Amino acid sequence: MLRHVVLFTWSDDADPERRSTTLAALRRLPEEVGGMTSFAVGPDAGLREGNAHTALVADFPDVEAWRRYAEHPVHLQVIAEHVTPYLAQRIAAQYEV
Amino acid sequence: MLRHVVLFTWSDDADPERRSTTLAALRRLPEEVGGMTSFAVGPDAGLREGNAHTALVADFPDVEAWRRYAEHPVHLQVIAEHVTPYLAQRIAAQYEV
Repeated sequence: MLRHVVLFTWSDDADPERRSTTLAALRRLPEEVGGMTSFAVGPDAGLREGNAHTALVADFPDVEAWRRYAEHPVHLQVIAEHVTPYLAQRIAAQYEV
Repeated sequence: MLRHVVLFTWSDDADPERRSTTLAALRRLPEEVGGMTSFAVGPDAGLREGNAHTALVADFPDVEAWRRYAEHPVHLQVIAEHVTPYLAQRIAAQYEV
């Protein structure tokens, strides 16, 4: 199984309303894109200074399923509209679990 | 449930043998520290340029269980010996799932 992990840090342009809209758009990905066996995205709990603002973990049956998700037009549209304009940093990894 | 997510990027000092030793030390944390209901750490699969080198995702029943893990002396020793000296970047988040 391939696990996809992303940590987002938002820019100062991303006020709470904007972050909420982005989170809602990301949470629609399982329905609108699919292909994952599990998916959870949410805001950092605020337990540590210096953390990223939002975490996303999604599991896929294999690399091809992840690739279909990653390259899906709806996914790319969500990234372009709701993620990229508000990013300070995005760091990701995919690993076998 | 609280999910703890960490993405590590290693410095140039961390050759493959060093990364392997660090990974092995991290993989002993469930046995040596415990408190989590799931734990998976592994090297990035190399599917995308610019990814972090190692991903760790661990689930805890609640914030207190995570805090006991985070502050456990064995955990802190593993970080001091096997992680911090070889880090270029570490970014983390904890979120409710």
